[in-house]
Amino acid sequence: MSETYTKLDIITRPDKFEELKNALVDIGVEGMSVSNVMGSGTQKGMTTKYRGTDYTAQLLPKIKVEVVIATTPVQDVVDKVYEVCRTGNIGDGKIFVYPVENIYRIRTGESGAAAITNKE
Amino acid sequence: MSETYTKLDIITRPDKFEELKNALVDIGVEGMSVSNVMGSGTQKGMTTKYRGTDYTAQLLPKIKVEVVIATTPVQDVVDKVYEVCRTGNIGDGKIFVYPVENIYRIRTGESGAAAITNKE
Amino acid sequence: MSETYTKLDIITRPDKFEELKNALVDIGVEGMSVSNVMGSGTQKGMTTKYRGTDYTAQLLPKIKVEVVIATTPVQDVVDKVYEVCRTGNIGDGKIFVYPVENIYRIRTGESGAAAITNKE
Ligand SMILES: Nc1ncnc2c1ncn2[C@@H]1O[C@H](COP(=O)(O)OP(=O)(O)OP(=O)(O)O)[C@@H](O)[C@H]1O
Ligand SMILES: Nc1ncnc2c1ncn2[C@@H]1O[C@H](COP(=O)(O)OP(=O)(O)OP(=O)(O)O)[C@@H](O)[C@H]1O
Ligand SMILES: Nc1ncnc2c1ncn2[C@@H]1O[C@H](COP(=O)(O)OP(=O)(O)OP(=O)(O)O)[C@@H](O)[C@H]1O
Ligand SMILES: [Mg+2]
Ligand SMILES: [Mg+2]
Ligand SMILES: [Mg+2]
Repeated sequence: MSETYTKLDIITRPDKFEELKNALVDIGVEGMSVSNVMGSGTQKGMTTKYRGTDYTAQLLPKIKVEVVIATTPVQDVVDKVYEVCRTGNIGDGKIFVYPVENIYRIRTGESGAAAITNKE
Repeated sequence: MSETYTKLDIITRPDKFEELKNALVDIGVEGMSVSNVMGSGTQKGMTTKYRGTDYTAQLLPKIKVEVVIATTPVQDVVDKVYEVCRTGNIGDGKIFVYPVENIYRIRTGESGAAAITNKE
Repeated sequence: MSETYTKLDIITRPDKFEELKNALVDIGVEGMSVSNVMGSGTQKGMTTKYRGTDYTAQLLPKIKVEVVIATTPVQDVVDKVYEVCRTGNIGDGKIFVYPVENIYRIRTGESGAAAITNKE
């Protein structure tokens, strides 16, 4: 099979989720799974003093949107995330891209790209 | 090392979890991690009107079962998921398959397949 | 691009998290995302009787720490996890290592290692 599938983890501000979800649907993303994480990123080196205590690697609430794509180009998703989630301030988040070996649709037993795309 | 390891994310109906967990143990799956996600899938294109508002990409509660396997064949897991989770209705869910580079058992320092299999 | 990136899922005891987070920052880990999972592992075969019922594959609360690294060696993370999380008792947990294809910083559009490392 020469199909390739990719997973993106989009970790961003919780208040961007509704707009992001609709924007991803608009560009043809086949589905998504959303969960809450606590995250720390590149601010970690900058220790903050708060009431006499050093706070390094403070954890902030983020949403993680997992998107597996088969026919939508990765770059389309990345560009759409930039459009919706970029404020220019720290906290905008990160996108991590992973290889996917296969996909199965439990209802029908279809595999590969067909497992996440609609026929009609 | 010629060993290969694989991760499966099984995203399905929450009420199938107990039966699925026991079925996976029966076929020799070495362990699993379970969490809740909110998901949307291939229904997304079908906009629903509810009290005058369009609902696209509505999110539904799903469970995500993460299973890393070393000696159990991927197909055995897929077949067992079909057996337990297929109702034939939309909402049965998806399986995503990912490559795994290595595994470590924190207690002993074992790596590879040995890190998730029992010796006895 | 000859850069490689790696993701580690560290699944361990919740009460080790604070110490682990600080230890990972100390070795230069660029960020992390933390969530709660319920897990079962290699004890699963050992059925426990509790009030007359067989409990197999009992689920225990664990934390999952996801760490994507670009410049920090995998072995440094693994060694640090052993140092902090190994008690020698069952329940110390597992580390799963995954390939990462790319990384994007949403704020700036940087990709690759530059997306998770600080310039200053
Ligand atoms: N190396 C990493 N591994 C795993 N998760 C990470 C990593 N770096 C960042 N994250 C996740 O992404 C979230 C956003 O990261 P970070 O704080 O670096 O972003 P940011 O503040 O938007 O970025 P920047 O400061 O570069 O503008 C973090 O809270 C964490 O959940
Ligand atoms: N492309 C995707 N990327 C990430 N997660 C997805 C994707 N497609 C589906 N999911 C996850 O899987 C869950 C089930 O998907 P979906 O609703 O498509 O399944 P289904 O209704 O059982 O399938 P079908 O409608 O094909 O019978 C979703 O709620 C979501 O959590
Ligand atoms: N094969 C697996 N696939 C997915 N997650 C797993 C797997 N094995 C273990 N886990 C996760 O890791 C956690 C710890 O696993 P396990 O109970 O095997 O570890 P442990 O008791 O510390 O190990 P050991 O008994 O080998 O010392 C589990 O609760 C589960 O969340
Ligand atoms: Mg930051
Ligand atoms: Mg569906
Ligand atoms: Mg165990």
